[in-house]
Amino acid sequence: MLKHIAESAQLASFELMQASTIEKNNALKAIKNHILSNKEIILSANSLDMNAGKTNGLTESLLDRLLLTSQRLDLICEDLETVIKLDDPVGSEFDGKQLENGLFLKKRTVPLGVIGVIYEARPNVTIDIASLTLKTGNACILRGGKETLNSNITLVKIIKQALKSVGFNENCVQLIEDPDRNLVLELLKMDKYIDMIIPRGGQKLQNICIENSTIPVITGGIGICHLFVDNNANIDKALDVIENAKVQRPSVCNALDTLLIHKKIAKDFIPKLVARLTQNDVFIKGCHQSIDVDNRIAPIDIDGYDTEWLSLTLGIKVVEDVNEAILHIRAHSTSHSDGILTQNISNADLFVMAVNSAAVYVNASTRFSDGSQFGLGAEVAVSTQKLHARGPMGLEALTTYKWIGQGDNLIRN
Amino acid sequence: MLKHIAESAQLASFELMQASTIEKNNALKAIKNHILSNKEIILSANSLDMNAGKTNGLTESLLDRLLLTSQRLDLICEDLETVIKLDDPVGSEFDGKQLENGLFLKKRTVPLGVIGVIYEARPNVTIDIASLTLKTGNACILRGGKETLNSNITLVKIIKQALKSVGFNENCVQLIEDPDRNLVLELLKMDKYIDMIIPRGGQKLQNICIENSTIPVITGGIGICHLFVDNNANIDKALDVIENAKVQRPSVCNALDTLLIHKKIAKDFIPKLVARLTQNDVFIKGCHQSIDVDNRIAPIDIDGYDTEWLSLTLGIKVVEDVNEAILHIRAHSTSHSDGILTQNISNADLFVMAVNSAAVYVNASTRFSDGSQFGLGAEVAVSTQKLHARGPMGLEALTTYKWIGQGDNLIRN
Repeated sequence: MLKHIAESAQLASFELMQASTIEKNNALKAIKNHILSNKEIILSANSLDMNAGKTNGLTESLLDRLLLTSQRLDLICEDLETVIKLDDPVGSEFDGKQLENGLFLKKRTVPLGVIGVIYEARPNVTIDIASLTLKTGNACILRGGKETLNSNITLVKIIKQALKSVGFNENCVQLIEDPDRNLVLELLKMDKYIDMIIPRGGQKLQNICIENSTIPVITGGIGICHLFVDNNANIDKALDVIENAKVQRPSVCNALDTLLIHKKIAKDFIPKLVARLTQNDVFIKGCHQSIDVDNRIAPIDIDGYDTEWLSLTLGIKVVEDVNEAILHIRAHSTSHSDGILTQNISNADLFVMAVNSAAVYVNASTRFSDGSQFGLGAEVAVSTQKLHARGPMGLEALTTYKWIGQGDNLIRN
Repeated sequence: MLKHIAESAQLASFELMQASTIEKNNALKAIKNHILSNKEIILSANSLDMNAGKTNGLTESLLDRLLLTSQRLDLICEDLETVIKLDDPVGSEFDGKQLENGLFLKKRTVPLGVIGVIYEARPNVTIDIASLTLKTGNACILRGGKETLNSNITLVKIIKQALKSVGFNENCVQLIEDPDRNLVLELLKMDKYIDMIIPRGGQKLQNICIENSTIPVITGGIGICHLFVDNNANIDKALDVIENAKVQRPSVCNALDTLLIHKKIAKDFIPKLVARLTQNDVFIKGCHQSIDVDNRIAPIDIDGYDTEWLSLTLGIKVVEDVNEAILHIRAHSTSHSDGILTQNISNADLFVMAVNSAAVYVNASTRFSDGSQFGLGAEVAVSTQKLHARGPMGLEALTTYKWIGQGDNLIRN
């Protein structure tokens, strides 16, 4: 069954990789129109999920992520319009030259093939992934959370109708409907048909993928993010950046988790920090040295520096200098986004060189790490691994390249 | 033990990623000088391996790959000079711009970190990998074949002496000396310390890596390569290209394995092909249709089209047209190098679009697929997977990038 899904997705991908940008945009328009004209069917499927969710005691925030409304469907269709307007990365040719041996050689951007995405309880992600993969000429295999199954079945059915209406192979977008968890393990072994796995979820899901997949996995989206306040930092501005990084949207992966503070400024800086952040209802946990300075700080737990808070909690630690800050970040960062606040150029350069995270900041908030802030147009995921793509991934990350060599019946000497 | 190797390699990589190009080149020069001044020690270690190899009945060709001589060491040192002269890809900055939100954002090429390489009985590969990883600021963990263990232990000892002589951390280059095969499985799980695994060996080794590694694996180096002779091909020139692709160096991965022939020209073309190739001692196996045309062709075995011959054997098959050729290649190619011989532009374009191999050729020999022919300066491996790097991999494939964002204490709105 799963093999059939994967096999037919690969066959569809062979067709899709030959589609022109206009054809792919037409398919995206058809999806948009089919969503708009099937709102009632979608919303009634979603209400089944919502009712089941309430019965099963899902939290308010999970229910909110699960909910579709007429207005939210309009927003999804606006996002589809945005994807239609993005440049198509497929078909770019680059590094072209005639080699000494006479061969005309170039690289051409091409789709990856089939992309498997495993995600949780958000039906809008279904449309999001289908549109981004379609735009880049890839087929996709979707595995959403079981809480959204009714919504996803209906959405994918409508996407398939839309694809058929413009002559596309409906197997370009596939949904694994069976909620059996073993199917995920089976999916991860289908390297013959699937070219990339993107797990969009917590550490547990990512570990399952890393440990079991024979397909390359793009891990990411988990950020234990640091800022280091150097003794040369502009204190008032530093407080602005720290507040922004921690408070603006604490539930996301690029929010600040741990603040490192140079010991020379600890006495002066920490009370100001506590005053500023407690105004924003931030709960601060810290090392002994920080508590010695300000007893409003709670002692941090043993695993506190390895925690992605996703809430208004902040871990703080007093460090010797930029070198200890770098060592702490190497030991505890998830390599998502880390920054230094300093007016000292040497320390800034050293920090940028030595901290090998996907995004490294000097005097800026970690909150900038996302596809739209980086001007990528769309965000497929935020990668924290080092191969293929790092940090916010735009459409290009869903492509690869092939070498094309041309001669007049050329032989190698 | 292995954990200690991996951990110390990672610590060394943190130092190495801050080394300048001049410092890294000095280290490479030191390695060269230490090899030249320790030739006798190296050759006597190698003679232990050679004697053991003879006792254990290694084939002549394996013994030849294992052998080091004074002259071969000179060649290895010449290769080191070549690596010294290559441009250092680390530290390139690109895509720099100020974003609408005020952030100055750029990408910088950085080393991957620690690279694990598993390879077979060739001691020159030890120097080759150590120099390419060092040049790109990466630490390496080497696992060579047990047949070369004495040579490798001595070579790595000399490399470490050279590194120390120029103030480098000797743990930049590490060798797994224990021949226990279980250590390979253990190595493949060390994702906390190792950033990339390159298996340089046969399908069995690659499968072990794909199935067991929690670290990204660059597979490759296995080529079931195809040429398709279209009915519009220039026959005389096509024969030159086919002969070159099959005969020039049949033991390598970019040599031709299967020739597909348009049915319209089969009767005329096949006898010419057989005449030309049998002059070169090529043994031809083919489908029934080809044997009907020329009974000097032997029937091909059931798995003949899935065989990388690595010898003077060629599989041939008569196909309906370019579309059947594409379908055959999709089903049987290892996505290494495949080409079309044709004068028909539409068929050439279709073939290039639809055959998604690392290198696709029009009227040129598959033998061009290698780092030096492609002008990459060095060849780390030939990747046949789609992420990160495809086809011949130069130094750049041993690097990744980080995003660097800079502001004057900039916050996100």
